[in-house]
Amino acid sequence: MRRDADAHREGPRTVAVLGLGLIGGSLARRLAREGVTVTGYDASAQTRTQAAEAGIRVAEDVESLCASAPDVLVLAVPLRAMRPVATEVARHLPASTVVTDVGSVKGPVREVLQGCGLGDRYVGAHPMAGTEASGFAASSAELLDAARWAVTVTDRTRPEPLATVLSLVTGAAGGRAFVLTDDVHDEAAALISHVPHAFAIEMLNLVSAAPVRGMALALAAGSFRDGTRVGRTDPRRTEAMLTENAGWVAPALRLAARDLEALATALEANAATTDFFDRADDVRATWQPQGAATADTDAADADAGGAGAGGAERLSVDLEEPGWSAELVELSLAGWAVVAVHGALVELAR
Amino acid sequence: MRRDADAHREGPRTVAVLGLGLIGGSLARRLAREGVTVTGYDASAQTRTQAAEAGIRVAEDVESLCASAPDVLVLAVPLRAMRPVATEVARHLPASTVVTDVGSVKGPVREVLQGCGLGDRYVGAHPMAGTEASGFAASSAELLDAARWAVTVTDRTRPEPLATVLSLVTGAAGGRAFVLTDDVHDEAAALISHVPHAFAIEMLNLVSAAPVRGMALALAAGSFRDGTRVGRTDPRRTEAMLTENAGWVAPALRLAARDLEALATALEANAATTDFFDRADDVRATWQPQGAATADTDAADADAGGAGAGGAERLSVDLEEPGWSAELVELSLAGWAVVAVHGALVELAR
Repeated sequence: MRRDADAHREGPRTVAVLGLGLIGGSLARRLAREGVTVTGYDASAQTRTQAAEAGIRVAEDVESLCASAPDVLVLAVPLRAMRPVATEVARHLPASTVVTDVGSVKGPVREVLQGCGLGDRYVGAHPMAGTEASGFAASSAELLDAARWAVTVTDRTRPEPLATVLSLVTGAAGGRAFVLTDDVHDEAAALISHVPHAFAIEMLNLVSAAPVRGMALALAAGSFRDGTRVGRTDPRRTEAMLTENAGWVAPALRLAARDLEALATALEANAATTDFFDRADDVRATWQPQGAATADTDAADADAGGAGAGGAERLSVDLEEPGWSAELVELSLAGWAVVAVHGALVELAR
Repeated sequence: MRRDADAHREGPRTVAVLGLGLIGGSLARRLAREGVTVTGYDASAQTRTQAAEAGIRVAEDVESLCASAPDVLVLAVPLRAMRPVATEVARHLPASTVVTDVGSVKGPVREVLQGCGLGDRYVGAHPMAGTEASGFAASSAELLDAARWAVTVTDRTRPEPLATVLSLVTGAAGGRAFVLTDDVHDEAAALISHVPHAFAIEMLNLVSAAPVRGMALALAAGSFRDGTRVGRTDPRRTEAMLTENAGWVAPALRLAARDLEALATALEANAATTDFFDRADDVRATWQPQGAATADTDAADADAGGAGAGGAERLSVDLEEPGWSAELVELSLAGWAVVAVHGALVELAR
């Protein structure tokens, strides 16, 4: 039942990557390294030059990128650029090309693509990978090593584009994929990424405005350093990310504000604060950060040649059987990730 | 003007450490290694055995610890144990012994010690060092390598005990010291340590209560891992720390709650959020985490034999001149740290 090291050869053979920033650039580099025929494009001439120098085949405009008739086109542009870019793509893209993206919110991207008439061949994707840096210069084929991806569907998603995207993600892209609805992804992303970014920025804001600011920064040690890490990156990029997911971020921030206010009140009143401090005890008891877990997985997978090979338990879902969509989502919520695709057969492990 | 590598030989020759947890244990190990005569005591018999096995001379009770007539007694017990411990210490300690501590809040400790009649020979101290672990088993002489310390005074602090504590901190303890008021320390600690701990816990709380909890934890990557690091430690220890500094922590939490609520409102209204995201731009532009800076300092100091030797600019303050207290505090606020003490002459660098 181990995954065949060559399984991704079943996946898409030609991929277009539109937008060659950190994630798009890293994906293009990785796919090219794995033998996929990759064509890239970026609105920035400088980025196109950098990509060409790195050995990526580069199209000179969106029209010629689409004219290469790729199996998959990956939209890797910021959400604010999505509508004009997708509109132009829709004009030129052959009907056979599957469309996916790599953005950190999924519902708003689907809305844009549906508006452009690309909705029926779109499958959302989001690799949980990144660095503080941005741009093609910071990209690398290794950034996506063994990445966990969210791949998002609706009850109208067709099996063929899903199988294509899953085989790309678990094949040449070297990842494993949870199949989710847009809403589950976007709510989770708010909690594990967008709110943490807001908190990191607020820690800096509090110190910035304090009378003891200089001394505080001089004394700051590990908890402040790690807590503010993602707050010290480009605030424009963070603002865009939170704004794009405002629908899920705002209520989470309100909950947080209420909890912190209640903690302040309890501290001032010398009242019990146990609920605040202990509420997440079950998370503490059962959850370990994925940094370590991924490293273990890497080691276990070294023999098998891919990120998807760790773990002994396996299941498969047949995309030709009715109910596959709900089944994939349910299994993902239970911790099963897609690790390979063989025809219409999706293989999951945990 | 370089600091003499043997400067700490001017410092206290005998030190008692009361409480042999992470910080007390690390300090005892380090001072013993540096040739100081160290006697330790801990309320836990198991800890006393561990310390003795590590080569620390261990007293069998507080009375005999005090009877060793140390130059300095370091209170390294939790704040909640401070009053009974200090009361017993006050009963037995010779009048010549200077008293200091290593706690993460300073005002409340001084109040307790003043109540026990130890206030006139007390100088507060707090090394900015720690790990997720606790207890003597986690202690090490290296934990305090090149640590930045806050040393706290009032306008009634006498020169002799201050010089003694500063020479201990910058000598055998291997640190550099900012001389502060209790309030400046405690407000800064709220902002750079206590609020970040509350934020880390709140990130876990939000996920813990969410319908998408399982998926969120499965997808969580770097920002959540680093943001929650100090929230995944013993919540009882964190609760004690925040409770002890409630006076400064509570208003900072209220400010944070207000800011996060305002951000939520702006996101929902699609209004400008620039103020939230950009407010700390000057901190981003001018501040680097001390992890890196400390490493540099270590390297620069290797030749000179101590943490206090980095940096070329030097100043000195004479504790026999009037106004030294305000001068030291002012220099510390301007970024100068005490790196050595020669008699009544306090040497600062930045």
